[in-house]
Amino acid sequence: MKGELRFIGTVERIENEEAEIAIFPEFCPGLRGIENYSHLIILYWLHQRDTAEQRQVLQVIPKRHPGAPLVGVFASRSPTRPNPIGMCVVELIRVENCRLCVKGLDAVEGSPIVDIKPYLPRADSVPGARAPEWMSHGPTT
Amino acid sequence: MKGELRFIGTVERIENEEAEIAIFPEFCPGLRGIENYSHLIILYWLHQRDTAEQRQVLQVIPKRHPGAPLVGVFASRSPTRPNPIGMCVVELIRVENCRLCVKGLDAVEGSPIVDIKPYLPRADSVPGARAPEWMSHGPTT
Repeated sequence: MKGELRFIGTVERIENEEAEIAIFPEFCPGLRGIENYSHLIILYWLHQRDTAEQRQVLQVIPKRHPGAPLVGVFASRSPTRPNPIGMCVVELIRVENCRLCVKGLDAVEGSPIVDIKPYLPRADSVPGARAPEWMSHGPTT
Repeated sequence: MKGELRFIGTVERIENEEAEIAIFPEFCPGLRGIENYSHLIILYWLHQRDTAEQRQVLQVIPKRHPGAPLVGVFASRSPTRPNPIGMCVVELIRVENCRLCVKGLDAVEGSPIVDIKPYLPRADSVPGARAPEWMSHGPTT
């Protein structure tokens, strides 16, 4: 009933909207061809929420969205959740050796990287998806 | 350099395009309000690929896409990757107690569920994202 993750890299630097992700050298061959995508899906570890206490929380009032009600963590993008994995769609700015420069990553410096997947509009883009009213106020997630 | 996941549920049944996800009772309060979203992001464990051998693979020739070259696993949606986490955008059909019926889940029966996030078009939809030519042949991922 458990899974083990090995971190593949780290968020090294965040400046304005751009973040630099350093992939550990042993995982670097996994980046081959990634420059052919304009957008990526980054899965990262919300390490600051990786405590027994935080991982037991199942309902939250999302602070960043004025008017939000009490909701389950699976009905919110709260960083507090049983498995502290963050997911973010980012724009790929450039790749240099084992480093990715991306735009729009909602992580903090030092966040471990769990996985990187190419963004595929055919599978991942649903422009008309419906979300509750309170989600349209405040930041995008 | 490691993270521990606790599975929150299982894919119980897949029929045609619909899948039934059973969330374990202790995590059920986390679903509160989820019925207000039309689409969800499901993170699941690719348990059949959770072997030391599979998790060492860093480059693949994606089989389902005719003409695909050798690429890094982070530049493909291959289920073989260092951390075998699958990610799928699904349509939420209905919620009944601790069970979700969803459409379009690319998992197999028995796959453990890692996390569920609401799909937010403002953050997650990039209709014009660019992917290489070979990715447009075959299935969506």
